[in-house]
Amino acid sequence: MSIIIAIDVGGTQLRAAAYTEGQPEPIAIHKAKTKANEPNAFDRLVTVVQAVLPKNQHIDALGVSSPGPLDPHAGVIMTTPNIKEWLNFPLAAKLSERFNAPAYLENDANLACLAEWKFGAGRGHHNLLYLTISTGVGGGVIINDLLLQGHHGLATELGHTTIQADGPLCGCGQRGHLEAFSSGTGIERYVAEQIAAGRASMLDGQAAPSAQSIARAAEQGDELAVESYQRAGKYLGIGVANFLHSFDPSIVVFGGGVSQSRALWFESFERSLKERIIHPKYLEGLVLASAALKDDAGLLGARALAEWKLNS
Amino acid sequence: MSIIIAIDVGGTQLRAAAYTEGQPEPIAIHKAKTKANEPNAFDRLVTVVQAVLPKNQHIDALGVSSPGPLDPHAGVIMTTPNIKEWLNFPLAAKLSERFNAPAYLENDANLACLAEWKFGAGRGHHNLLYLTISTGVGGGVIINDLLLQGHHGLATELGHTTIQADGPLCGCGQRGHLEAFSSGTGIERYVAEQIAAGRASMLDGQAAPSAQSIARAAEQGDELAVESYQRAGKYLGIGVANFLHSFDPSIVVFGGGVSQSRALWFESFERSLKERIIHPKYLEGLVLASAALKDDAGLLGARALAEWKLNS
Repeated sequence: MSIIIAIDVGGTQLRAAAYTEGQPEPIAIHKAKTKANEPNAFDRLVTVVQAVLPKNQHIDALGVSSPGPLDPHAGVIMTTPNIKEWLNFPLAAKLSERFNAPAYLENDANLACLAEWKFGAGRGHHNLLYLTISTGVGGGVIINDLLLQGHHGLATELGHTTIQADGPLCGCGQRGHLEAFSSGTGIERYVAEQIAAGRASMLDGQAAPSAQSIARAAEQGDELAVESYQRAGKYLGIGVANFLHSFDPSIVVFGGGVSQSRALWFESFERSLKERIIHPKYLEGLVLASAALKDDAGLLGARALAEWKLNS
Repeated sequence: MSIIIAIDVGGTQLRAAAYTEGQPEPIAIHKAKTKANEPNAFDRLVTVVQAVLPKNQHIDALGVSSPGPLDPHAGVIMTTPNIKEWLNFPLAAKLSERFNAPAYLENDANLACLAEWKFGAGRGHHNLLYLTISTGVGGGVIINDLLLQGHHGLATELGHTTIQADGPLCGCGQRGHLEAFSSGTGIERYVAEQIAAGRASMLDGQAAPSAQSIARAAEQGDELAVESYQRAGKYLGIGVANFLHSFDPSIVVFGGGVSQSRALWFESFERSLKERIIHPKYLEGLVLASAALKDDAGLLGARALAEWKLNS
């Protein structure tokens, strides 16, 4: 019986789960607080993994999901906001040595993509585009049933593609990226700028309205709040048109916190997408879906990565 | 001995060549004028193919390169500027029936990409980005040694990705595409607009300066002409940064007429690319190459397509 250990280096929790081949549910799952700024993170992670190890059984492989930037080919985390002490840290090699099994690493957006394709909203599709829209915008792409990783393992940083070369600043320091328009941060910045410019809003007076509080104001009819989500949707349509022209998938899966306020941005997104597409055939049969896996996407993606690498 | 027939539906010539497995040079090659507006194009094409058929030998497959839009999965040309009477024309099925062998169709940019990867500047690379910069901007991508085609066969229309949402009109009718900035047409339009606005240039007085005549003026130091190519290079850098963030290739191959004026745009392109990249690792070992195959890219790409499909 094949045993896979999946690990999710999350922002608040380190999680591990043990899976057996062909079984959807884990046989064991354990978690601990991440503590991004504290030392000995690797030891904390080992303890979490040990808690899910089946007694007297060989592990076939480990898979790890973490935010990057990271090098999936080498299994090295360059930096990650979730564990500050990991700088060019060879996490896969360290886990492999510690648990005597091959270990594989990929970034969280790519593994959420892989999980949605294998276990979630994208099952049965061969060409899938996944976008996670929360604080930032992340992406992942499946082409002919394979995760697109790229030569350096840095493919599909789709939030950081330029759609307005002289546009607003992105969190990364560049201008006009999709993330600068359509992420929660982009929505928050737009509302703050408009209020600072004298625009009326029920959000005026709040120190720094969050994307969530803006969504609540929009649901109550606040004009600026409504417009801020529609604007995010419009630019998301421009970005997704670019990705259809680039990858031509049969399904787009939206994950992340902002994507859950779908009623606020979807109509303007869809209008913009239809306006920007260069041939109607791109939209033939195209499925626009919400992510089906919630908190478990990281673990399931790490599991899918390990199974894929073992079998290839 | 395996025999492949390659066909190139070019703007001025219909060409066919017969290749045997493992031999770089064709055993026969023939051509005729395309005559885009005249009827009976399929019969003209059949005549060209018949001229290269080896006597008393079975053909293993045919491959066809043509501008699109076209459906490579179905082998159907939706429309092509090179043969006006072909509207939703099942070219692959017609050729297959006529010559009793499987026939495969792909667009010219994708097949030039495939040819450069298999026989040209990209040999040995597993992840390749190809851009052809001439009247328009076309693209092709190899990922893990496979041509990216997409669900509808419409992937990598890279000239029609938006880099400035409110930017200048593209030939396709949309705004702010890479092609609107960096193609020969984009360069020509910029120069014409600047002259109309009163800008001094040795090109003032010419009815409609071509990208070639602008290149000659730039080589003679004309300030507007120099700037027009530098501007094209700057936006090309923004577009290529997007493509590195999307596909993360190990080589970028530039083909097409405008790309041959490399001295006029390369420096501004490279500066812009370096400014726009979000992590220096994308550029580690990245090769920026000129296309190695000239007029034969279409035939060699059609050959590579047929060999690939036969073996998969």
